[in-house]
Amino acid sequence: MTGRIRNQRLAARVVDAERAAELIESGDNVGMSGFTGAGYPKEVPGALAKRVSVAATEGKPMKVGLWTGASTAPELDGALAEVDGVDLRLPYQSDPTSRAKINSGEMHYTDIHLSHVAQQVWEGFLGPLDVAVVEVAGITEDGRLIPSSSVGNNKTWLEQADRIILEVNSWQSADLEGMHDIYYGTALPPNRKPIPLTRPADRIGTPYLECPVDKVIAVVETHSPDRNTVFKEPDENSRRIAEHVLDFFDAEVRNGRLPRNLLPLQSGVGNIANAVLAGLDKGPFTDLTAYTEVIQDGMLHLIDTGTLRTASATALSLSPDAVERFNNNAADYRDRIVLRPQEISNHPEVVRRLGCLAMNGIIEADIYGNVNSTHMMGSRIQNGIGGSGDFARNAYISIFMTPSTAKNGAISTIVPMVSHVDHTEHDVDIIVTEQGLADLRGLSPRRRAEVLIENCAHPDFRPLLRDYYERALRDAYGRHTPHLLSEALSWHQRYVDTGSMLP
Amino acid sequence: MTGRIRNQRLAARVVDAERAAELIESGDNVGMSGFTGAGYPKEVPGALAKRVSVAATEGKPMKVGLWTGASTAPELDGALAEVDGVDLRLPYQSDPTSRAKINSGEMHYTDIHLSHVAQQVWEGFLGPLDVAVVEVAGITEDGRLIPSSSVGNNKTWLEQADRIILEVNSWQSADLEGMHDIYYGTALPPNRKPIPLTRPADRIGTPYLECPVDKVIAVVETHSPDRNTVFKEPDENSRRIAEHVLDFFDAEVRNGRLPRNLLPLQSGVGNIANAVLAGLDKGPFTDLTAYTEVIQDGMLHLIDTGTLRTASATALSLSPDAVERFNNNAADYRDRIVLRPQEISNHPEVVRRLGCLAMNGIIEADIYGNVNSTHMMGSRIQNGIGGSGDFARNAYISIFMTPSTAKNGAISTIVPMVSHVDHTEHDVDIIVTEQGLADLRGLSPRRRAEVLIENCAHPDFRPLLRDYYERALRDAYGRHTPHLLSEALSWHQRYVDTGSMLP
Repeated sequence: MTGRIRNQRLAARVVDAERAAELIESGDNVGMSGFTGAGYPKEVPGALAKRVSVAATEGKPMKVGLWTGASTAPELDGALAEVDGVDLRLPYQSDPTSRAKINSGEMHYTDIHLSHVAQQVWEGFLGPLDVAVVEVAGITEDGRLIPSSSVGNNKTWLEQADRIILEVNSWQSADLEGMHDIYYGTALPPNRKPIPLTRPADRIGTPYLECPVDKVIAVVETHSPDRNTVFKEPDENSRRIAEHVLDFFDAEVRNGRLPRNLLPLQSGVGNIANAVLAGLDKGPFTDLTAYTEVIQDGMLHLIDTGTLRTASATALSLSPDAVERFNNNAADYRDRIVLRPQEISNHPEVVRRLGCLAMNGIIEADIYGNVNSTHMMGSRIQNGIGGSGDFARNAYISIFMTPSTAKNGAISTIVPMVSHVDHTEHDVDIIVTEQGLADLRGLSPRRRAEVLIENCAHPDFRPLLRDYYERALRDAYGRHTPHLLSEALSWHQRYVDTGSMLP
Repeated sequence: MTGRIRNQRLAARVVDAERAAELIESGDNVGMSGFTGAGYPKEVPGALAKRVSVAATEGKPMKVGLWTGASTAPELDGALAEVDGVDLRLPYQSDPTSRAKINSGEMHYTDIHLSHVAQQVWEGFLGPLDVAVVEVAGITEDGRLIPSSSVGNNKTWLEQADRIILEVNSWQSADLEGMHDIYYGTALPPNRKPIPLTRPADRIGTPYLECPVDKVIAVVETHSPDRNTVFKEPDENSRRIAEHVLDFFDAEVRNGRLPRNLLPLQSGVGNIANAVLAGLDKGPFTDLTAYTEVIQDGMLHLIDTGTLRTASATALSLSPDAVERFNNNAADYRDRIVLRPQEISNHPEVVRRLGCLAMNGIIEADIYGNVNSTHMMGSRIQNGIGGSGDFARNAYISIFMTPSTAKNGAISTIVPMVSHVDHTEHDVDIIVTEQGLADLRGLSPRRRAEVLIENCAHPDFRPLLRDYYERALRDAYGRHTPHLLSEALSWHQRYVDTGSMLP
């Protein structure tokens, strides 16, 4: 016993993970905690995977619907995908095994805007939620839950599920208590009210998750770290992209289009995002705020140095080094960090009101400014749209970033036509590669093509793009968005056939 | 003098349209009123077109940037496009001459979410606004403006423009006074506050447009009707589509997923939309509300019969018969209709809060649920995205409607891959054709393909779609969204080459 379960009734329900997993039935929809490798249940998923595996050998195949906040970790997504235990996965994943099963057609996947998930469950659009499996950092005397290193959809899972399994993880800092802000003011229409949040640091709810004790069928104690991926130093391309973004912010401030302390930052996860955050630390901007999904190393560092005043998110996603720093100082970070349900961290109403500066990585963009965030060569899912749509559509300025090539130069990330669209031409303000920045605001498609090819495309592909655009301008069915339909996706097909987009 | 100009200073600035048009310079960005053929200036645009024409013969070509609420009429869009007087048009148009000039590459067009326009102008993203040309129904003693039959972006034009030209149209009902609700609570971040609107009929502003008298450089008196397109009775396909939609609403109510009086209706313009509205009048739903862009004949009829309690919009778009009824009874309609700025009628915050039922027409959808609302064969613009994205992304349920074929059966509106994406797979709940309804909520792409082909495709194209899907499922680069890239757009290319998508 770790002392994390202060409620007597729930302490009496402690079982081991195997026993808990037995309470999940084939065909159940299971809502698990977890967001970008933080706060996911550590043991029940593995025990469930073992059950599925045993059931298969007994000729009784078992599958569940698996819902989460966003991505989890190999011991959850990987373990369940490996044994073919998942019928339908939603709303986001980034696991190699899970991805392989989806792309081989053995698993269904529904890729949903992260702000849409909770409401769609409440609305009954995704079917009943049978079981919730939620990691928490502790349980109070009166049975409320101290959330873990992510909040995600946990509020909704606990309210909507028929049965609840809790994992109490004593590895998580006990000082997480008080860091969260769980808003209980949501409703279904026609009873929705304005969300009273006007500053990133505003607290509009309570630090605890409510949990109907009667629904809790098992409590499992764990002591395991989050996924905590090792932090990589930004590479040369990422640093160049970051420079272009920072120069752009600087120019916007000089032109009176942004305040000197910018506007709340939203930053996707990864190498480029970290490079931008690292660049911000070198000045000249101070007194910054963030209203984002995930706090990763770069952002924690900005908090440490004081450049970032406060940050709101729904999850942490830290390296082992950073998480140690966080856990040792969680009580201090509590004044600077707010963790919220993802329906609030990503809410269109709030994102638009705050005027976020949205910065997200992409797979490819086309010469007219359409963006693909999810699919390789039109068919193969990579991860998912995540919250990029929630932020991009409603941002003050929506910035998308990518190196200009991938696969050692075999792929151009600026293409004639994207093979899948996640962000339409109507939602894309700025595209940045290491080559430069294209400011698309207010431009017609033809003017976008000129600036995108010139500023963003890699020199190896720039003449090919110019050639396509000029021939399309001459021969297309219409000259608003000139395309040659029989060629528009030929770069992707060439890559599938030959391993390179280059002719 | 019509008595509509009650302010003495502004009455003294009355000139004829030719004189007013002379106050517009080449290179100016001009913000004109007008939304779906209502409330646009009737005389200054024509006078400006004449000036452009004369200037051209004198070897002094003249072009302006033309910004509006949405579509206008031949005497505005048509007249200016005809003389090549427009460099860049935004955010929406539906004029044949304008469309032809855009698609021939002679005119630039930027197609913007209607809720984004005002904020982008305030943010300075579209450049300076030099002149506003705004139709009003009258001017009060103290110089405030009585808005006309549309509000659109007029509040922003009047505030942002350096110079203002007013058209006072005495054809518009004097009883429009009091029907509008102009919200003056917007701001730029970080100073934005919640928009205090929780019911479609809420009034949160004032009935008048504020107008700095010093900026008014000319006032023109007119007496001309709006575009007022003749109403067509719904055809057989539209009636069938409407039946499917109404059956769906009925089932949602029975399954407890919608209240008995539904939720606020948003309805695009046109034949299918009118058919749905006509169907709603036959029951069983009563006490309905609408929160939409445009009030057209079908909606006015629902107000007349009492089925619709109240409607909020930014514009009227009525037939000559309906507009006569409206003008004769405007004082009565004032209690049931609210006209607002389009940034509020289409605001993501409000649309999501109210939980609108969004119903919009489309050009085509693909088997995975991506929707094209704007482009013919990938290159040629039809009209624009309008407000469909504002509503679809934030709706309670997002419904897209189209007959299953176009051009007498030569075009299938259900295709392997759409040739342009305006609404991504993440934003589309329901697709309806006269063949049936596809409920895509919660489905993976492969499951969407099965239901879309089976329920929505025309029998002439269904086997071809099945064949594509089955071969893609076998041979695609990935099986999440199986596509054959060399074939995905071949139906469109075939139409361009042969005039039919059929092989």
